[in-house]
Amino acid sequence: MNAKPLSSAPPSPWPQGPSRAEQRQAKRDAVLNVAAQMFNERGFHATSLDDVAAHLNVSKPTLYYYVKNKEEILIACMETALALMLDNMEESRRSGRGPLEQLHDCMHVYGQMATQPFGICLIRVGDEVLPPDSRKELRRMKSEINLQFRHLVGDCVQQGLLAPCDPTVTAFVIQGALSWLARWYQPTGAYSADQIIEQCTQLLLQGVLARPAHSQ
Amino acid sequence: MNAKPLSSAPPSPWPQGPSRAEQRQAKRDAVLNVAAQMFNERGFHATSLDDVAAHLNVSKPTLYYYVKNKEEILIACMETALALMLDNMEESRRSGRGPLEQLHDCMHVYGQMATQPFGICLIRVGDEVLPPDSRKELRRMKSEINLQFRHLVGDCVQQGLLAPCDPTVTAFVIQGALSWLARWYQPTGAYSADQIIEQCTQLLLQGVLARPAHSQ
Repeated sequence: MNAKPLSSAPPSPWPQGPSRAEQRQAKRDAVLNVAAQMFNERGFHATSLDDVAAHLNVSKPTLYYYVKNKEEILIACMETALALMLDNMEESRRSGRGPLEQLHDCMHVYGQMATQPFGICLIRVGDEVLPPDSRKELRRMKSEINLQFRHLVGDCVQQGLLAPCDPTVTAFVIQGALSWLARWYQPTGAYSADQIIEQCTQLLLQGVLARPAHSQ
Repeated sequence: MNAKPLSSAPPSPWPQGPSRAEQRQAKRDAVLNVAAQMFNERGFHATSLDDVAAHLNVSKPTLYYYVKNKEEILIACMETALALMLDNMEESRRSGRGPLEQLHDCMHVYGQMATQPFGICLIRVGDEVLPPDSRKELRRMKSEINLQFRHLVGDCVQQGLLAPCDPTVTAFVIQGALSWLARWYQPTGAYSADQIIEQCTQLLLQGVLARPAHSQ
């Protein structure tokens, strides 16, 4: 139990560290992060909780204090990636920017997800291994993201900002091209993640065909 | 042993059926096809050879006459998809068509792969489960396909047919958008596979941004 703070007392010379709950959360996050990177490098099925424990220098019983099993880790990684993406997309929506700017924002949010461990995990590891309830919830979140892309593309077409197209196909083309980053992007390569994401975004928006000189 | 054909004799009224080797091949193909569709629907790990045998109305020992194990099936499915793609890309190269037409051809070849069971398998099932030798060979074939896309994009840029771009990033954007078909395309949907692939191809070539009227 924490002591009741004294309103007029000077601050304690023994600085207060993070609370027990914060420490637990930080340790659970470390477990999720190491596990996600192992899933991404070796595959979900080839990674054991023993591997994760060994990498963190803890015993397997210690690990069980933070997570129930491997599936729970995978669900947490995937949910974190999806929730962060939905939050950021919602933030862009509330910004009051136009639909084309919002589409650009959302493409960046998606690309960032696809170049970070939890998002890579979401894209590379199939959800067939998960219990039906969790799979259903994750698919609901994925559909929501897809729906937002479709709506944004539809709004842009209506306002003449995008060429006439089928918003469903366009949303999948955008998400597919950006999801593929999870398979090929190397953080040690010539470009930063943001540079690559911007290149992909411009390719998708502008296409690759050379334009006649007078339209450039 | 086949009887020596008699040059002047009339054709036999008992039509000759497929040879034993052809029958064996057809049965092996049926095993691969059923297995690929099960991998795609349930996931590789959740599919057992018992499931495949049951679906084909054969015993598991019968199945072992055609395939050694589940990994061998997966390798055969993936190799078939990659070899077919490489063959078709090579055929386009030999046609003598210009690089932009070849790029268009190769995008179609890739899209067709991504909407058929062996290709869906190639894209959805990770290759981490495979023995290192097979994985290496499959990755070599994938690199070859990626290299062909990069070369075609590079040639198009050099000839002023595509806007200046990094051919590596562009090749991955193209392959990613088309690979994603394996995740969302439904054969029972409103468009045929060819129609969807052509829509994706045009979106990638032309981009989604609306063009100023004078450049259309």
